[in-house]
Amino acid sequence: MPKNIPANSVGLVSPTTHHFEQPLTLASGKVLPAFDVVYETYGTLNRAASNAILVCHALSGDHHAAGYHGMDDTKPGWWDEYVGPGKVIDSNKFFIVSSNNIGGCSGSTGPASINPETGNAWGASFPRLRARDWVKVQARLADLLGIQQWAAVIGGSLGGMQAMRWSLEYPDRLRHCIVIASAMKLTAQNLAFNEIARQAITSDLNYHAGDYLAHGTAPETGLALARMIGHVTYLSDGAMGEKFGRELRSGSFDLGQDSDIEFQVQSYLRHQGKSFTGNFDANTYILMTQALDYFDLAREYDDDAATAFTGAQCKFLVVSFTSDWRFAPERSREIVNALIAAGKSVSYAEIESAAGHDAFLLPNVRYEKFFDAYLCNVIEECEGEK
Amino acid sequence: MPKNIPANSVGLVSPTTHHFEQPLTLASGKVLPAFDVVYETYGTLNRAASNAILVCHALSGDHHAAGYHGMDDTKPGWWDEYVGPGKVIDSNKFFIVSSNNIGGCSGSTGPASINPETGNAWGASFPRLRARDWVKVQARLADLLGIQQWAAVIGGSLGGMQAMRWSLEYPDRLRHCIVIASAMKLTAQNLAFNEIARQAITSDLNYHAGDYLAHGTAPETGLALARMIGHVTYLSDGAMGEKFGRELRSGSFDLGQDSDIEFQVQSYLRHQGKSFTGNFDANTYILMTQALDYFDLAREYDDDAATAFTGAQCKFLVVSFTSDWRFAPERSREIVNALIAAGKSVSYAEIESAAGHDAFLLPNVRYEKFFDAYLCNVIEECEGEK
Repeated sequence: MPKNIPANSVGLVSPTTHHFEQPLTLASGKVLPAFDVVYETYGTLNRAASNAILVCHALSGDHHAAGYHGMDDTKPGWWDEYVGPGKVIDSNKFFIVSSNNIGGCSGSTGPASINPETGNAWGASFPRLRARDWVKVQARLADLLGIQQWAAVIGGSLGGMQAMRWSLEYPDRLRHCIVIASAMKLTAQNLAFNEIARQAITSDLNYHAGDYLAHGTAPETGLALARMIGHVTYLSDGAMGEKFGRELRSGSFDLGQDSDIEFQVQSYLRHQGKSFTGNFDANTYILMTQALDYFDLAREYDDDAATAFTGAQCKFLVVSFTSDWRFAPERSREIVNALIAAGKSVSYAEIESAAGHDAFLLPNVRYEKFFDAYLCNVIEECEGEK
Repeated sequence: MPKNIPANSVGLVSPTTHHFEQPLTLASGKVLPAFDVVYETYGTLNRAASNAILVCHALSGDHHAAGYHGMDDTKPGWWDEYVGPGKVIDSNKFFIVSSNNIGGCSGSTGPASINPETGNAWGASFPRLRARDWVKVQARLADLLGIQQWAAVIGGSLGGMQAMRWSLEYPDRLRHCIVIASAMKLTAQNLAFNEIARQAITSDLNYHAGDYLAHGTAPETGLALARMIGHVTYLSDGAMGEKFGRELRSGSFDLGQDSDIEFQVQSYLRHQGKSFTGNFDANTYILMTQALDYFDLAREYDDDAATAFTGAQCKFLVVSFTSDWRFAPERSREIVNALIAAGKSVSYAEIESAAGHDAFLLPNVRYEKFFDAYLCNVIEECEGEK
């Protein structure tokens, strides 16, 4: 619980839910007849509506990027480290928008919502999604908020994929595209980890072919396994070593038949798995990992990324972290090379960090300074247009 | 099926099972009243019994290191690439011994064996094991075979841990210790992957607290998940990329609700998981991963590895592979540094390979040449003693 909300926090925030009445045709060809989107905003939109930033969330994120929902909250939003007054994404300067993607489980229409055609929860019948579907919804949200052009669209990981997709789908609707710890497509290893995570969920007997809500249950064991796999791969070997090493729970090996926990890291993982299952929907986890798998920026451009980026009009910032092995710096360099080949303006920083993929969420002086310097230029542009 | 057994194969081989009557006190303090060990040998023991090599197997290996059990075998033993006449571990020169570790599921006493005290399968009540227990059993096997001193004890991964343990426990019983793709202890990340694998097994409803045999079932789903996790981490990102990339099953995305396989790598993984469950016992998988976790060479030597190695009398060869991220070259360099600090003779090769941890099993010209050159010297020593 934050006894006192920190001065550099956006403070207490409330999400807004908007019901979109217009049907949405998805990349799969399926149509969502209507849908809800829950979002938060921080800061004030200037008169020219030129200072808006869209923050896109990753696999397990949501619309709650910064601040607190109540004085009892033990934690702020997921990117509070970087979003707030005086912070890198400065809510004193920018109007920041963060929405929960459809298919999510935090208030936007998703698998746990009621399918109006059946009167039951969608469950596993919720249409498969691609990053372009989210971008389409975010564009509608921009229309709703009176934002013709984002100062910047920013995202890490799966969020970075949405940011890149924005630059292709709505080239005149963003001035900057900021892609952090992301990739133009997943590697086979990444596909494999996602596949195992989904199998852990779907092979849980409580999954009931995705209709677990109708059975009054949830595949908690499978989802916990999926989360644990994800969690380990989002950290680096070094980060886990620093955090736990081989520390034992009881000071020495037990070797007994009844104790199934010897190392601290085991307790930690179990806790991570368990606490996630209380807050996240298994069908959403499946949808989000599938969207990651499907993302392939250059697929419709003869696998030529430079061609894919040809139509982009914005400037790009690409950031990677040295110890991130799921979205390795090499993947970011591929983005940068494609942008250079396409003749686009691109800045790139490869940030020294031991924190693995999670680094994009965590404090890091060099990352903050670099990111901040870039956004200061963006602010100046906005102020020129006010 | 090998229509014709290759000329450089050890050919058709038959395992031998020996029943050890003398009780075995384990590191846990528990006692196995008697036990079976199944083993294979290739080549001929010379008169001085100076040309014997012990091959120690890893997590999912067994005694069947080389050759074929029958003309219908589709595959030879697990290290056939390196063990055979004229091969690196040359059965024309050496007498090679390979045994299934106790706790295993290929013929040596393990969780699927009958506990004489209860008349039922041990199941999860089979005592926890440490690498030193296996070394003790291997020493008894050496006694049985009339081998006072091994020319070399060789192992990859968990097998390398056994080789190192030999050099500490029975310093006068081996002349060379060959440690491939191994480590003096697992990192927190490795502990974490093992923990998730075990949880996948134990949370399978068919696990029945380890007594699945009594229930006429097996935790096949959990074991398949465990295997898939292991399999992905034993490969490198690059190796998986070369093998599958993002190849699709049907040439394009399906995006339908019913298809849960889009990429070739998904089918491959499922096949890997499924085929493993038919051949491996889940309780053995748990025991083996626990033994990996427990291994900590320097733990009883104030965490000082140089002190641990002080009593070793053999020469060492240490080999690592550049793309092996579960037993990274850094772990091998730690072994080498400790040996140097302890004043021991050590050769080290860091082999360029894209194959990840599995590299120690696969063809690789540099690895073969280096390994072969080392063993040629070992042969010369043996011949000097004949």
